[in-house]
Amino acid sequence: MEKIGLVVLADTGPGVLHQVTGIIGRHAGNITLVELSEDRGPAARTYFEIELPGDPAALVAGIRGLAVTRQVEVVNTMQKIYGKRIIIVGGGAQVGQVALGAIAEADRHNIRGEHISVDTIPLVGEGPLAEAVRAVGRLPRARALVLAGSLMGGDIEVAVREVRAQGLLVVSLNMAGSVPDAADLVVSDPVQAGVMTVMAIAETAKFRIDRLSKRVF
Amino acid sequence: MEKIGLVVLADTGPGVLHQVTGIIGRHAGNITLVELSEDRGPAARTYFEIELPGDPAALVAGIRGLAVTRQVEVVNTMQKIYGKRIIIVGGGAQVGQVALGAIAEADRHNIRGEHISVDTIPLVGEGPLAEAVRAVGRLPRARALVLAGSLMGGDIEVAVREVRAQGLLVVSLNMAGSVPDAADLVVSDPVQAGVMTVMAIAETAKFRIDRLSKRVF
Repeated sequence: MEKIGLVVLADTGPGVLHQVTGIIGRHAGNITLVELSEDRGPAARTYFEIELPGDPAALVAGIRGLAVTRQVEVVNTMQKIYGKRIIIVGGGAQVGQVALGAIAEADRHNIRGEHISVDTIPLVGEGPLAEAVRAVGRLPRARALVLAGSLMGGDIEVAVREVRAQGLLVVSLNMAGSVPDAADLVVSDPVQAGVMTVMAIAETAKFRIDRLSKRVF
Repeated sequence: MEKIGLVVLADTGPGVLHQVTGIIGRHAGNITLVELSEDRGPAARTYFEIELPGDPAALVAGIRGLAVTRQVEVVNTMQKIYGKRIIIVGGGAQVGQVALGAIAEADRHNIRGEHISVDTIPLVGEGPLAEAVRAVGRLPRARALVLAGSLMGGDIEVAVREVRAQGLLVVSLNMAGSVPDAADLVVSDPVQAGVMTVMAIAETAKFRIDRLSKRVF
């Protein structure tokens, strides 16, 4: 199954999404992402990612044949362009240092054909941080989370255990609070934390967390 | 219209998405995002964002009533949790410095109630960079793009003009090549470029690019 991206520009109105998804279904396409553009005009731009058996030409022709369709374009998927994502959350000072390490290391792997993005949000407070940790489970292409702060515990720890159970790798700075106890890996230096996280998810790296004999650095 | 997030855990199989979207349609919900989780088991987790008139309780009860549904949860939207996004692309050294400035500045605004994320990818080459610039137009919640490098032109410039025409703010480092000529704002210092970009999209900032008397700093 090849995964393709499809940008469809169509008249707005009830039932348009239903018509387009109907045609995708008839071509045995498995929709994995649908995203409607935020600016609403007379025409709406919708981005689909679809697993498709064989050539997309017939599917594209089918969508073009709809009365509401203005334009259809096949594009590379977000996985091909932006690739795997590392998400860094926490205090601005530390998020910045972890990002610096992660971006420098992602650069070295992306030059050799990897596609790794480094995405961040500086936040304050147990509630917003726990919510951001849980939401990483709903972010497309997220592979690892770094908790970058000086004190994190309580509901943030609960959220860390939840997203780890969903298969996400969690790295924590060495800090006060219970979050380091819940993480896969604990690193004291923020730049190294960023570098190690990228190494852990890069196919081009030899580093594997399950081969480490200790988990605190 | 309130916008809600909905996580639906349901049995996998053909027609499941169709059944759920049918119920959303019957409750006059306008779907703006559908994202299927990547790990496939006997049950699939799908995340919806829906504009809905009134209380979501009836919609949730309707989806819970389907034979295929295992669990339904109302969550905050990505806009509420991660907010507006700044995307930084280019060479690792410069992407890191722009990110450092942008994260420090986003921290100051997020503390006052803003939600600004700083997302990055280090990339090399005209083709991959032009493709990443164009794809920003398909990234949800992207408000501004920073081109962080030493030499960018050719198709990257064409792509910059395309995404600007779609309403995206584009900031460029002062660099060789034609990209600075195509940008809204040109900044020599990468940390300041990150700070200014966040200021430009933050509601909590007084800075407005259209009030500047020059566009190169």
